[in-house]
Amino acid sequence: MLLAKAVQPPAPPSHLLHAILSVVEELPSRLLVGVSGGLDSCVLLDALVLSGKRPIVLHFDHGWRPESGEDAAFVGRLAASYGLPYRQEKAPSAARDSEAAARRERYDFFARASRSLGCCDLALAHHADDQVETLLLQLLRGGGTHARGMREFELRNGLRLHRPLLWIERKEMREYAKARNLSWREDRSNQDCRYLRNRVRHELIPFLEERFSRHARRALLRFCRVRIDEEEWMTGLVRQRAEEEGLSVVELRNAPVAEQRRWIHLWLRRRGVPDVSLADVESVRWLASEPRGGKQLSLGGGWKAIRSDGAISLRRKEEGEPCVSINS
Amino acid sequence: MLLAKAVQPPAPPSHLLHAILSVVEELPSRLLVGVSGGLDSCVLLDALVLSGKRPIVLHFDHGWRPESGEDAAFVGRLAASYGLPYRQEKAPSAARDSEAAARRERYDFFARASRSLGCCDLALAHHADDQVETLLLQLLRGGGTHARGMREFELRNGLRLHRPLLWIERKEMREYAKARNLSWREDRSNQDCRYLRNRVRHELIPFLEERFSRHARRALLRFCRVRIDEEEWMTGLVRQRAEEEGLSVVELRNAPVAEQRRWIHLWLRRRGVPDVSLADVESVRWLASEPRGGKQLSLGGGWKAIRSDGAISLRRKEEGEPCVSINS
Repeated sequence: MLLAKAVQPPAPPSHLLHAILSVVEELPSRLLVGVSGGLDSCVLLDALVLSGKRPIVLHFDHGWRPESGEDAAFVGRLAASYGLPYRQEKAPSAARDSEAAARRERYDFFARASRSLGCCDLALAHHADDQVETLLLQLLRGGGTHARGMREFELRNGLRLHRPLLWIERKEMREYAKARNLSWREDRSNQDCRYLRNRVRHELIPFLEERFSRHARRALLRFCRVRIDEEEWMTGLVRQRAEEEGLSVVELRNAPVAEQRRWIHLWLRRRGVPDVSLADVESVRWLASEPRGGKQLSLGGGWKAIRSDGAISLRRKEEGEPCVSINS
Repeated sequence: MLLAKAVQPPAPPSHLLHAILSVVEELPSRLLVGVSGGLDSCVLLDALVLSGKRPIVLHFDHGWRPESGEDAAFVGRLAASYGLPYRQEKAPSAARDSEAAARRERYDFFARASRSLGCCDLALAHHADDQVETLLLQLLRGGGTHARGMREFELRNGLRLHRPLLWIERKEMREYAKARNLSWREDRSNQDCRYLRNRVRHELIPFLEERFSRHARRALLRFCRVRIDEEEWMTGLVRQRAEEEGLSVVELRNAPVAEQRRWIHLWLRRRGVPDVSLADVESVRWLASEPRGGKQLSLGGGWKAIRSDGAISLRRKEEGEPCVSINS
């Protein structure tokens, strides 16, 4: 029986098994799992099964590479070998303009599958090396003022994302896969240094370890841990006020600058303003600092912020309404 | 008259002059200024004089390079050209084991000069490029969980440090120096890539700008700004409790993880524990999580933390007392 064969020993080194199973066991028993067919997601899938879960396997075929259909077939066979339900989808067109667009498509598929299967919990195989890469990418990008890596748990598009392997390193995953005799598909596009993330992985991190500190990766990982907890704390401190319809100008002015920023940022996001930037936040702070009301300014996604005497409110710009600037 | 000659036009571009003078003008009128003789500190000194201050010029000769005596002589002449008081000191021995040791020596000199001159305010010429380098160094080092660059104002060794040029870029300083017809000394050791900071400056940052984002420097600088403000906010939230003699176990347990960490960190520092690491902080958190008192653990600098039933206190280890570990 395939299922029995797959979940039997050989066991990985016991400390590693313990580390991986203990985080995986905490996940809900009914859940989806995103499986690309690479090392990371094959380890996650195996660990889920080993800990007694019966996840529904999801695979999204981006259609980027000629062999991507084979990846889908591989993941289908893998799911069957564990006796698990499997659902896949192929991107409608192979033309992608960016990694970000590809990620959006993949998450859209996850969200659709979640709705049709009536299951909101999705496990993803992001691990510690991904985490460090994400932190560096966030830091280097223009909008990286909130850089802190990924979170173990996150709500997105109505999905509850779980990343149980987030603090496990790739070399540990290899060890696990070897001991458990797993097979997986190598994604050749992971080597392609036209992609920013691959350059971080293959050029920047080795450069940092070689020229600066062989512990650089660990140091950055620790930074993520501390900063994620700090973000949760700071967000908790402004959460209630960020739910309110308007921003109180007096309260805002009396808060420390960092509290103002976190409050405004969360308030804008909660009200649907997309991709809130530091510039957006600073504009709203400027609006609050003005001596009296009547001014307004444009934000992303067709929103505008309007300052009355005591508060700042948000409104969607009307069709055809000219772009309102802070100088108007 | 030399003074008049030095402070007369040519003026730098007006926006730059405005930016530099507006931050320098806010400094106390009686102050010290650290001048190495390099571009940055020569610009700072000139801007101070131009804004009407009469600082006391301090120069520390590390004695690292054969020509360092000439730097000292240059700074002495420069101070005289502005008609300013000047004080210098030479490191007792040319043997240094690290940049950190050199920095300590320099700050010790500043502290001595401050006491003997009865002036606590010291202006330093750190600028935006230094800031980005500092952030990267902090991130790459093992203890970089609080990485956020330098602060514009800081208390250290009884000194009030001011860094008015912290958000001005090096290329702007060059522009200022050119327009003001300043001269300065090039420090050849700034090119020496045996030093970690120089490798960050000459290898890492150009690599990031070339391979990842030409706006990397700006993005990192924005990150520093946001994070410094966040640190100030978070520290403000725990400041009062960090002054108390003991740590309340119940209060600590009820706080969010990040608040616990900030509180313990500040509490340890306020009580004199040197170089508080994340490991120290996590040890104290562990001590608080224990079901009952009676346990103790060793911290840096000959301190130990002792857990009673309701609180954690600190005590210096006695002479000859064996190292107490959390397992003892």
